[in-house]
Amino acid sequence: MKYVPREEIESRISKVKKLMEEASLDGAFFHYKIDYYYLAGTMQDSLLFIPSDDEPILFVKREISRARRESPIKQITPFRSIKEIFTHIKPMKRVGLQLDVIPYNDVIRVKEYLGDAEMVNVSPMIQEIRKVKSPFEIGLMERAAEISKRVYEKIPELLREGMTEIELGGILEAYAKTHGHEGLLRVRSLNYEAYTWHILSGRTGSIVSQSDSPMGGLGLSPAFPVGASIKKIKKNEPILVDFGISYHGYHMDQTRMYAIGSMPDLFIKAYEACKEVHYRVLDKIIEGAVSKDIFEFSKQLAEKMGYAEYYLGYGHHKVRFLAHGIGIELAEYPYIAANHNYSINEGTVMAIEPKMVFPKKGSCGIENTVLIEKGSYRVLTNTDEHIIIV
Amino acid sequence: MKYVPREEIESRISKVKKLMEEASLDGAFFHYKIDYYYLAGTMQDSLLFIPSDDEPILFVKREISRARRESPIKQITPFRSIKEIFTHIKPMKRVGLQLDVIPYNDVIRVKEYLGDAEMVNVSPMIQEIRKVKSPFEIGLMERAAEISKRVYEKIPELLREGMTEIELGGILEAYAKTHGHEGLLRVRSLNYEAYTWHILSGRTGSIVSQSDSPMGGLGLSPAFPVGASIKKIKKNEPILVDFGISYHGYHMDQTRMYAIGSMPDLFIKAYEACKEVHYRVLDKIIEGAVSKDIFEFSKQLAEKMGYAEYYLGYGHHKVRFLAHGIGIELAEYPYIAANHNYSINEGTVMAIEPKMVFPKKGSCGIENTVLIEKGSYRVLTNTDEHIIIV
Repeated sequence: MKYVPREEIESRISKVKKLMEEASLDGAFFHYKIDYYYLAGTMQDSLLFIPSDDEPILFVKREISRARRESPIKQITPFRSIKEIFTHIKPMKRVGLQLDVIPYNDVIRVKEYLGDAEMVNVSPMIQEIRKVKSPFEIGLMERAAEISKRVYEKIPELLREGMTEIELGGILEAYAKTHGHEGLLRVRSLNYEAYTWHILSGRTGSIVSQSDSPMGGLGLSPAFPVGASIKKIKKNEPILVDFGISYHGYHMDQTRMYAIGSMPDLFIKAYEACKEVHYRVLDKIIEGAVSKDIFEFSKQLAEKMGYAEYYLGYGHHKVRFLAHGIGIELAEYPYIAANHNYSINEGTVMAIEPKMVFPKKGSCGIENTVLIEKGSYRVLTNTDEHIIIV
Repeated sequence: MKYVPREEIESRISKVKKLMEEASLDGAFFHYKIDYYYLAGTMQDSLLFIPSDDEPILFVKREISRARRESPIKQITPFRSIKEIFTHIKPMKRVGLQLDVIPYNDVIRVKEYLGDAEMVNVSPMIQEIRKVKSPFEIGLMERAAEISKRVYEKIPELLREGMTEIELGGILEAYAKTHGHEGLLRVRSLNYEAYTWHILSGRTGSIVSQSDSPMGGLGLSPAFPVGASIKKIKKNEPILVDFGISYHGYHMDQTRMYAIGSMPDLFIKAYEACKEVHYRVLDKIIEGAVSKDIFEFSKQLAEKMGYAEYYLGYGHHKVRFLAHGIGIELAEYPYIAANHNYSINEGTVMAIEPKMVFPKKGSCGIENTVLIEKGSYRVLTNTDEHIIIV
């Protein structure tokens, strides 16, 4: 079990303090576990307070001895109530809170103790810092990529006609867990859940759902309407496996295509087009192009190849992003997306996923998680990119 | 795939409208998918508005054709923005919002269009209704219990010395999925995640974590500090399996004890004490006793049997609940807990989980999901309750 090193935490806190200073904040509260894990190194039930002019304090509800072991933060204090926390804190004028994720009532409870202080959403600051990964983080993501590779290499051995999508998904996940996969994927959303067993075969690959993805799948019930279903996997249909991994909280995202017997020509060609988009887009990222221009470029490229209708979803179900940053959340900044106006920095890790959906027939696509380096890139999910026929 | 029947939805909406009327609300918004699924029958990306004096409107972002198929709500309308929603809604004076779960910024976005209207947290009203299960819901929970039984009956076949906790957890989950388990457990919390692969063996059973449970387990990393770990399962130690199931969104919770070779006497006796508490508590529930009195009674009973120190956790890590309602959330109202001042109605389904923790040695306990009926009860998780030795 790897703990986050002290110098890593110190560097992250000094970066967030700099952004807090630029925003004239006197202090900020981090309640959301994804973010206080990033800044403190523990996911024990806590609340992290960072004052602009002093050392951070980690307030821990449960379990404080584990928090002390895991976190290099010097001041770690037990707490039972918000009131108790404010006995440790000086009055402030401008205060950071994670207003994008913390429930309204919880913010109001804190506000009681803030007097007239102005509240500012501090999440964009930490999201900004999290965009660029440190060598420590890249090391963990490489381990996640190894697990991912083992899982994908296991698929040809497991795939057989007549098994259900969910059966394959379950077996892959059990296998992944024996190699360190943590089982859950984390997303910054009240209502959206991500999970690993995303196996779509033939027609279910063209079914759209509540998820912001070109294809959602049928799922298992109206209460679970995304991903693998009890549809049996058949011969000669495209099988799309989009299986996420989490290792020490770091995600890895990958998509590959499989078929039993043969893959219909439509999907072989569309898959090649997806690969073309994928690598041409990576070149554009390296050249320093702006996100929305890269997105537009990819659309035009798909169009030129004859896939305008099918690229990133069919008809009005198209999604407006092609790639997402990835780290301790499955999808985080930066994005390659229709409205995003920035270029991609080195040190960013992105999941690039050009996909095509053919109504009533199915879908195909490729997805790699890629580290952007200075003037180059490195594909972390370096599994064979051929369509695998068993 | 079962859809929620029209009469079921109509009955739920009429109940929530009655509570809204008592609270003098002019209308209420349900943003949280667990709750709008309960009231509308779909988990497509939606927002449900219920006016006090008119028919409900389901606003759907994605995917509206699935929402129309799944939901019996008559008025189903696409929407892109909050602004659009308010073109369908009359001005209101008192408005219900789910202030306990909706992020602050999202509430503020709605508030812009509410003018001076007073905002009221509507979640307690739907939580109140969800306490009592309908025959339709009980039918789904019975199916979930069947899946759970199959999983537990599979354990003796799978358990072997030297396998890791997470390996067993993964295999059980794969098996459960082939029988209809949906893989995720849902909890009403920003920071707490529940999941099924909760296998604790020997000493890891005495490790506490951020979760509000007597024992949390070691987990896989500081980013995933709860539940099964890479500890190898050994001979002659207590193995606690607390494995949740989800079927059509309905949860089922169960705990049983296993050992390879033999179970140490300490745990055999403590397990028998847990069973005693479990069934004596059920009698108290049926007699109509008040939640906090039942909780206190169970503590005294554990104390009499010599387990005061170990019951529901060790030392300052004790939890203050013994049972939780269960349904489309893993833990929901009602609770048997230290501060809860009500008795338990018939039609309630509860997971009752007396557990003991022995520091550095491990833990044991039993958990059943039980339907409370008129003057009696029915254990849904009717798996053999003996300690299983393989």
